[in-house]
Amino acid sequence: MTERLVVIGGDAAGLAAASQARKRRAAADLEIVAFEKGGYASYSACGIPYLIAGDVAGPDRLIAREPAVFRDKQAIDLRMHSEVTAIDVHASTVTVHDWTTGKEYGQPYDQLVIATGAVATRPPLPGADATGVHGIQTLTDAMDLERRLGEEKPERAVVVGAGYIGLEMAEALIRRGLTVALVDDGPQPMRTLDPDMGALVADGLRGIGVTLYQGERVTAFSTAKNGHIEAVQTGTGTIRAELVVLGMGNRPDSALAAAAGIPVGPTGGIRTDRQMRTSVDGVWAAGDAVETFHLVSGRPVAIALGTHANKQGRVAGINLGGGYATFPGVLGTAVSKICDYEIARTGLTEAEAADAGFATESVVVESTTRAGYFPGATSMKTKLIAERRTGRLLGAQIIGKEGAAKRIDGLAIALWNRMTVEDMSGLDLSYAPPFSPVWDPVLIAARKAAELIERAAEA
Amino acid sequence: MTERLVVIGGDAAGLAAASQARKRRAAADLEIVAFEKGGYASYSACGIPYLIAGDVAGPDRLIAREPAVFRDKQAIDLRMHSEVTAIDVHASTVTVHDWTTGKEYGQPYDQLVIATGAVATRPPLPGADATGVHGIQTLTDAMDLERRLGEEKPERAVVVGAGYIGLEMAEALIRRGLTVALVDDGPQPMRTLDPDMGALVADGLRGIGVTLYQGERVTAFSTAKNGHIEAVQTGTGTIRAELVVLGMGNRPDSALAAAAGIPVGPTGGIRTDRQMRTSVDGVWAAGDAVETFHLVSGRPVAIALGTHANKQGRVAGINLGGGYATFPGVLGTAVSKICDYEIARTGLTEAEAADAGFATESVVVESTTRAGYFPGATSMKTKLIAERRTGRLLGAQIIGKEGAAKRIDGLAIALWNRMTVEDMSGLDLSYAPPFSPVWDPVLIAARKAAELIERAAEA
Repeated sequence: MTERLVVIGGDAAGLAAASQARKRRAAADLEIVAFEKGGYASYSACGIPYLIAGDVAGPDRLIAREPAVFRDKQAIDLRMHSEVTAIDVHASTVTVHDWTTGKEYGQPYDQLVIATGAVATRPPLPGADATGVHGIQTLTDAMDLERRLGEEKPERAVVVGAGYIGLEMAEALIRRGLTVALVDDGPQPMRTLDPDMGALVADGLRGIGVTLYQGERVTAFSTAKNGHIEAVQTGTGTIRAELVVLGMGNRPDSALAAAAGIPVGPTGGIRTDRQMRTSVDGVWAAGDAVETFHLVSGRPVAIALGTHANKQGRVAGINLGGGYATFPGVLGTAVSKICDYEIARTGLTEAEAADAGFATESVVVESTTRAGYFPGATSMKTKLIAERRTGRLLGAQIIGKEGAAKRIDGLAIALWNRMTVEDMSGLDLSYAPPFSPVWDPVLIAARKAAELIERAAEA
Repeated sequence: MTERLVVIGGDAAGLAAASQARKRRAAADLEIVAFEKGGYASYSACGIPYLIAGDVAGPDRLIAREPAVFRDKQAIDLRMHSEVTAIDVHASTVTVHDWTTGKEYGQPYDQLVIATGAVATRPPLPGADATGVHGIQTLTDAMDLERRLGEEKPERAVVVGAGYIGLEMAEALIRRGLTVALVDDGPQPMRTLDPDMGALVADGLRGIGVTLYQGERVTAFSTAKNGHIEAVQTGTGTIRAELVVLGMGNRPDSALAAAAGIPVGPTGGIRTDRQMRTSVDGVWAAGDAVETFHLVSGRPVAIALGTHANKQGRVAGINLGGGYATFPGVLGTAVSKICDYEIARTGLTEAEAADAGFATESVVVESTTRAGYFPGATSMKTKLIAERRTGRLLGAQIIGKEGAAKRIDGLAIALWNRMTVEDMSGLDLSYAPPFSPVWDPVLIAARKAAELIERAAEA
């Protein structure tokens, strides 16, 4: 008897689940229908700032596979512009609204994967829906923004929110020739970094001409008579702009699951076990809509990131295809390239560590990306945060020019294995003059941190 | 009472030991004398190829600190052109030949650090000492070669030996405008890589115009009547050249220690414990002259590398300064940049794994260094070798353009922690379009290796 798999969401997680399930179960054994409410599936949302900046030729380049390919090559019936509006876990049916035809229909399932993704935070403020105020979550958002940039040639932009996307968008708009102000209510850009490291990012932003409004909250969006945005009001003043980009982060889009009685955790993400099963029989969830747990803090977290979504979708698909796989949790590893800086982090910041109850010691090491005598050597800062009592690594941050970002992976692997900074100081890391000083900054930082821990133990 | 520390060798290991000992013990407590037989101390030998290529402005740039700095800032009496010709472990004295004055004298010690470094392999062949045949081990060698290049303007060079130094020198000479032939008796350049990965290096070398003579042994060096090199004879023919560079590797320079009855291991390196003590009381050894052990094979190895030398010297200095430190062993991690390729390896090759008794599975993954749609994405090959039964990672090799080399560090840390490829496939590695595809090649390779291991278990 053919089972029916329904996938809600045509993003990385949903389609990875569908693909993996198909790999293990033929069409005669498993029928797969996937519903995507938008007009694009299977694209790289992380590539959007580079599309706006002009690095990527066009939106098509961000699309990994066209819907037809899923149908033709994998017998996955991917239906676009099809929004699932309700899940009935008792009847094992979802309700689908087809935006092309305007029709609504029920779709029964035996297995269900919820991959509804994340929903962008929009400020509940007057004027937030004005013409010229753009979200930047989806490829459709990107194309809307691109159209406005091309047709209206705005000169002044305000970016709200100084997380990865906000910063990447600020830089992209600078590169498009706009005057850019960045407004954020935090004390520094990038709250995923410690303040000392975040300050470097602020310097970089100012260096390319971004005006920073830190510690300021947007209070209203002022519109002209034609409904078009003309200024952003903050607690302290008015910033005139013809374009606003909202980069205020996002949260798991778990409303549909919650309405169906599928348990949602404290982060707002759908709860799953290691195999990506929810507690409701036959219902799985994966991607930005779920919560996972942090391997250092031990706490539930919801981190919207393509790599996690891909892995979780894959895990769900393997399991419902009859295989065995688990998702092991996350470290909060992230990188970004902003204003010539590579910015990387993993694990806990000092504040996150304190919040999780860890007493810590931190070190920051300034070094070069190549041997000092080698042409092109530039400065790099490496920060390590370790538990005071045990010396266990808890987190790391690196900011520098070329060669900085991918160094964070080694630190993520050290975290994963619960290494101490003492152990790390003996690591056999690679060395050649074009790639690092003879003591890699990671080793120097580990050594200094180990010395601090030793002194703390003696005190 | 003041103790006397004598250090034999002014390289990284010897001076790191001296500096660390000084840090912990004042001059009134510990007198430090270091003997360096050459005219340069404390320089980066790894920088020599870049000096010849013209990337580094002059030899001074490779010198970390002048001898006077050690005397003035650290009260380390560093004596140049001073060769230790004998150690008497019963009388606790070394015999020193001062090449400047021609005088010989005895120098008593309470503690002795042997950091005699490595000695370059020179073929015991007719003509090997002819004018125009250059070693490339020391800064003096580099300056001799530089002088010949400047004064005689040779047009054709033969490099003997296709290890890191041989390849880096071949490239440097190509960049200086010479016609370069590379002769090596192995089947491929870089025997520290598996043949399939080494073949990529061979392609790269040919791509920049190096003529490769693989699987050929040099049988003689032919000289003109004036004693100058004019050709290299191999098993199969004659290669005309006005310049020969020997890059045939090196071995621990342990002759002095061996003559004094200090135990030397099967690799020819001086044996030490984890604290870098030899089995003779008060005698320590560190750097290229010692043997250490490989953390994957468990076997003794001698690997001449500045990072190990630095660490071992530091460990010896801390311990003889009254502190506590250990050297944990090595993984054989190495990187090099040759012909636009970044070449990196860690752990065991397939052949080394087989030799150590491991049954293995290997995967090679071809991917891009950035997201496929991101400008500047180039190809990269990642190879993982895992134990067949357990899936434990045993070795890794990466060849690619930008961003390849430092990825090996993460793999080295995975090896260090005895991770399995299954575990590795769940790692939270960094992702952003400028730095990697959404599935980092390391994750893809780990996943494919895990699938192979699973299939091998089922078979």
